[in-house]
Amino acid sequence: MSVDDFIVTPWHVEGDIDYDKLIKKFGTEKISTEILTRIKKITGEDHFMLRRGIFFSHREINRILDDYEKGKKFFLYTGRGPSGNTHIGHLVPWVFSKWLQDKFDTNMYFQLTDDEKFYSKQNLTLEDTSKFAYENALDFIALGFKPKNTKIIINTKNIQTLYPIAAQVAKKINFSNTKAVFGFTNETNIGMIFYTSLQSAPCFIEDKSVLIPLGVDQDPHFRLTRDIAPKIGKPKPALIHNIMIPGLSGPGGKMSASDENGTIYTTDSPAIVKKKINKHAFSGGQSDIEQHRKLGGNPDIDVSYQYLRIFFEPDDKKLKSIHDDYKSGKMLTGELKVILIEKINEFLAVHQVKREKAKDHINEFLFENK
Amino acid sequence: MSVDDFIVTPWHVEGDIDYDKLIKKFGTEKISTEILTRIKKITGEDHFMLRRGIFFSHREINRILDDYEKGKKFFLYTGRGPSGNTHIGHLVPWVFSKWLQDKFDTNMYFQLTDDEKFYSKQNLTLEDTSKFAYENALDFIALGFKPKNTKIIINTKNIQTLYPIAAQVAKKINFSNTKAVFGFTNETNIGMIFYTSLQSAPCFIEDKSVLIPLGVDQDPHFRLTRDIAPKIGKPKPALIHNIMIPGLSGPGGKMSASDENGTIYTTDSPAIVKKKINKHAFSGGQSDIEQHRKLGGNPDIDVSYQYLRIFFEPDDKKLKSIHDDYKSGKMLTGELKVILIEKINEFLAVHQVKREKAKDHINEFLFENK
Repeated sequence: MSVDDFIVTPWHVEGDIDYDKLIKKFGTEKISTEILTRIKKITGEDHFMLRRGIFFSHREINRILDDYEKGKKFFLYTGRGPSGNTHIGHLVPWVFSKWLQDKFDTNMYFQLTDDEKFYSKQNLTLEDTSKFAYENALDFIALGFKPKNTKIIINTKNIQTLYPIAAQVAKKINFSNTKAVFGFTNETNIGMIFYTSLQSAPCFIEDKSVLIPLGVDQDPHFRLTRDIAPKIGKPKPALIHNIMIPGLSGPGGKMSASDENGTIYTTDSPAIVKKKINKHAFSGGQSDIEQHRKLGGNPDIDVSYQYLRIFFEPDDKKLKSIHDDYKSGKMLTGELKVILIEKINEFLAVHQVKREKAKDHINEFLFENK
Repeated sequence: MSVDDFIVTPWHVEGDIDYDKLIKKFGTEKISTEILTRIKKITGEDHFMLRRGIFFSHREINRILDDYEKGKKFFLYTGRGPSGNTHIGHLVPWVFSKWLQDKFDTNMYFQLTDDEKFYSKQNLTLEDTSKFAYENALDFIALGFKPKNTKIIINTKNIQTLYPIAAQVAKKINFSNTKAVFGFTNETNIGMIFYTSLQSAPCFIEDKSVLIPLGVDQDPHFRLTRDIAPKIGKPKPALIHNIMIPGLSGPGGKMSASDENGTIYTTDSPAIVKKKINKHAFSGGQSDIEQHRKLGGNPDIDVSYQYLRIFFEPDDKKLKSIHDDYKSGKMLTGELKVILIEKINEFLAVHQVKREKAKDHINEFLFENK
C-alpha cells in the first residue's frame, strides 16, 4: 500500500481513494464550477454525472471547449479491457460519452483491448478476451450509439490500422518511462510493456483533437501520450475522468468483472439482481432496526445509495429525499435496497432487449482497416 | 568491447569475430562433416557455401533432416531489416535459401522488418524503411524465387497476421529476458523491446517445422523463440547460420548498408563497382610490388579474395589457383581486384535486368492477410 493508503493504476485499484489527493498525485485538474457552467451553457443541460462529481477531474477540457466554440470539432474515444462480461459500473463512462456525443455532435471510437487483457491476465487466452470483447460491444451498442458516427476498434482485429500509429508513439517511450508511470518491473512481459502505445493510437486516428471520457485509473496511459503528442506533431489528448465505481462489497477498489458476487452483470435476471443486492450490497446502516431508527444510516458508504447517486437516480430531488430518509433512520437498508433493485431491473429490462437487437447490427459498428 | 574482443548482436557487430568462440558463446553447434555428408546425400549436391564454412553453425538441423527423410516437410524463413539499399553481402543467405528451397521443395517466407529499423534507427521514418523494404524485395525476387511458394512479409503491411502470433510469444518474454539476450537497458524504446516477438511470429505461420538460414548476428532472436516454442505448443525453429560478410574496408564488422564507400550495392554501375573495389577493398598484399613478389599476399584478410570465396567464385579449383597465386606473390592485388570486379559486374549485369523485371511481379509475392 502506498503512503496514501490507496493505489490507482490501470491494472490495480486498491484502498479508499481520496480523489482530491489523487488529482494532486496524477497532476490532473478538478472540474471547477466555471467548467460546469461552461458545459451547461454549450449543451443547454446539466448532466447529473457532472453535477454530482462522478466525473470529477480533467486534463485540458478548456482547450476542447475553446476550440469547439470557435467551430473546431473534436472526436471522442473511450474503451474497455475485455476481461469479463460487462457490469453496470462499466456503463458509467459510456452513458456519459453518449451524452457528449449527442450534445457536441462528434464521432466516437470505442476500443476493446483484447490484447491487453490477454497480456495482463495469466489465465485468459486471446480467444477468451475476443469473446468478452464481443459481449462488451453488445452492451456498448445497446446504449443507443449509431454506426454512422460510432466505430468499435478491437485491437487484434484493427492492428493493421493501429500499429503504424502505435509505432510512432512506441519509438518515443522507453522502459524507464513505463516503470515510472505503471510501476513495471523486469518481470513484466514485453506485450504489456509495448501495450500502452496501442492504447494511445486511437488518439491520433483522426486529424482532430480528441476528448477521452474514462475511469481515472486509465489516466497514466494518456499521461504518456500527452508527453509524446508534441514530439510526433499531434495535439495532446484531453481527458475527463470518472471516479471508480465501487463493487457490491463496498469501497476499497473498483467493481471487478471477475468477482461474480461483487458484480451486477448487464445480463443478470431480475431474481439474480435482487439476490445479489440483498445479499452482497454493502450497507451503511446500523446493526439492528432499533439502532438504525435511532442513529440513522451512512449514505456515503452505502453501496445501494451510491449506485443510485452514480447511475440509477438522475433526479436530484428524489435522490435527496432518499439520502435524508436513510440518514435520519426513517428509511431502512432493506427499503433502500428495494428502490435500487427496482431501478436496476427497470434499466436492465430495456437494456437487455436492446442488447439482443445489437447482435444484428454489431458488424455495422466494427472499424474497417483501410 | 567484450572480453572476447568482438561483439555480435542483431544491431551491432564489431571486432574480429572468432567463430569457434561465437559458437560456444551462443550455444549453437558447428556444422559437422556428418551433416555436410547427410545434406549432400539428400540434395545430391555439395553447396560451396556449406563446403567452405560460409554457413558454419546451426541449431537442430538434424531434426529437420530426420523429419524430412520420414516425409515430414518443413518451410524456410529468412528476412532483412530494411535500413538501406541491398548490398551484395545481403544476398548470401538469400542465394543459399533459394538453393535449399529448390532442393527440399519448400515454402519460403521472407520478412522485411520495416518497423524494427524504424525503432532502431533514430533518423529513419516508417516511410523511409518502407521504401527500402520495396527496394530490398526487388533484389530478393531477382534471385529467381517463384510466387507460388514464396511470400514476402512486410511487418507493417502484415501486422494483422503477425500480431496475434507475436502476442502469444510476447506474453512469455519479460524485460529481463530481453536484457540478457540483447543487452537492452532502461533507455531502450518499447517498440524495440516488443519487436523480437514479431521476428518470432513467422516461425509459427505454418503448422510445420521451420528452418531459418540467416546471419549469425540474428541468432539471439531465435534463442528466445526456441525457449518459448514449447510453452505455446509449437516446434522450435531450426537455424543455419552464415558468417558476417566483411565490408570493403576489411574484417572487423559486417558490411553495413549505411556506409556508401564500404559497400557494393546491387544497383551500382560497372564503373562504380570498379572504382569502389580499386579504391576501398582492403588488401592482404604487401606495400610494394617487390615486397609482394617476395613475401606474397594474405588471402585470409584480403577482402577481394574473401568475396570470391564467399560468393563470386563457386569453382573450388579456380578459387584455389587464385589463392595460391596470391599467396605466393605471383598474383598482385591489382590483378586479384580485376578478377573480382569482372565477377561482380557479370553478376550484377544479369541481376539488374532481373531486378527491373521484378517490379512488374512484386505484388504476386506479397503475403496477403487473411
